[in-house]
Amino acid sequence: MAASSHTDDNCIFCKIIKGDIPSFKLIETDAVYSFLDIGPIAPGHALVIPKYHAAKLHDLPDEHLGEILATLKKIAVAQGVENYNILQNNGRIAHQVVDHVHFHMIPKPSDSDEAGLVIGWPTKKADMDDLKKLAEDIKGKL
Amino acid sequence: MAASSHTDDNCIFCKIIKGDIPSFKLIETDAVYSFLDIGPIAPGHALVIPKYHAAKLHDLPDEHLGEILATLKKIAVAQGVENYNILQNNGRIAHQVVDHVHFHMIPKPSDSDEAGLVIGWPTKKADMDDLKKLAEDIKGKL
Ligand SMILES: [Zn+2]
Ligand SMILES: [Zn+2]
Repeated sequence: MAASSHTDDNCIFCKIIKGDIPSFKLIETDAVYSFLDIGPIAPGHALVIPKYHAAKLHDLPDEHLGEILATLKKIAVAQGVENYNILQNNGRIAHQVVDHVHFHMIPKPSDSDEAGLVIGWPTKKADMDDLKKLAEDIKGKL
Repeated sequence: MAASSHTDDNCIFCKIIKGDIPSFKLIETDAVYSFLDIGPIAPGHALVIPKYHAAKLHDLPDEHLGEILATLKKIAVAQGVENYNILQNNGRIAHQVVDHVHFHMIPKPSDSDEAGLVIGWPTKKADMDDLKKLAEDIKGKL
């Protein structure tokens, strides 16, 4: 199929898509593949990946983005989870381990740090003039 | 426009979309609205929200999901960031503060916990038989 035209022979997720490495598959369409994370941080921790190999979100052509969120939603609904995080990491320092775009659906079973995503949020007091300038700067590059 | 037919008068993000509360807007389309987070955890921390009011991802109809990832990507590309996290939280215990679906694009400027998303990852050793059973169970509900 079209999506498989862009794969990386050394990529573990491309191998999972091809079936060369086994996985606990949940959903497969022409565009996406979904399976359970085998190093879950909570029961039901699942991954949704585009079949098109791209390391980071900004490397993935828009036409391969379309089914990702609907698939994550479908998996959350199937599990009946009310509390969960959708997370997609880009770059080693941002906690990305496999260089094939992947979205986590991570249930948060309780308030405890023992399971689910543990989030640190180092908010800084922002200067409103700086934000205004930054917004203009970004808009100039859009 | 169509999207504004589903709003919540008490929702701060619906008010931002309507322009009743000011924001540092980046992108607006018929389906999504994007602006800088005024409590940024890193410079460039931005939000993308659907115009359709829904508290959690599973409450948002699929037809309102379409432009979200492409918009997040566009903002990452405009900023030229290489390391960043895409995060969407559902539920108080999963760190959701405003009950209108919102996706964070959070640059990770360095390895330090001083800025950007700080991630705790309480991986548990998973039992393969349990995972297999869980995958079957979820598939049965899809
Ligand atoms: Zn790959
Ligand atoms: Zn709202």
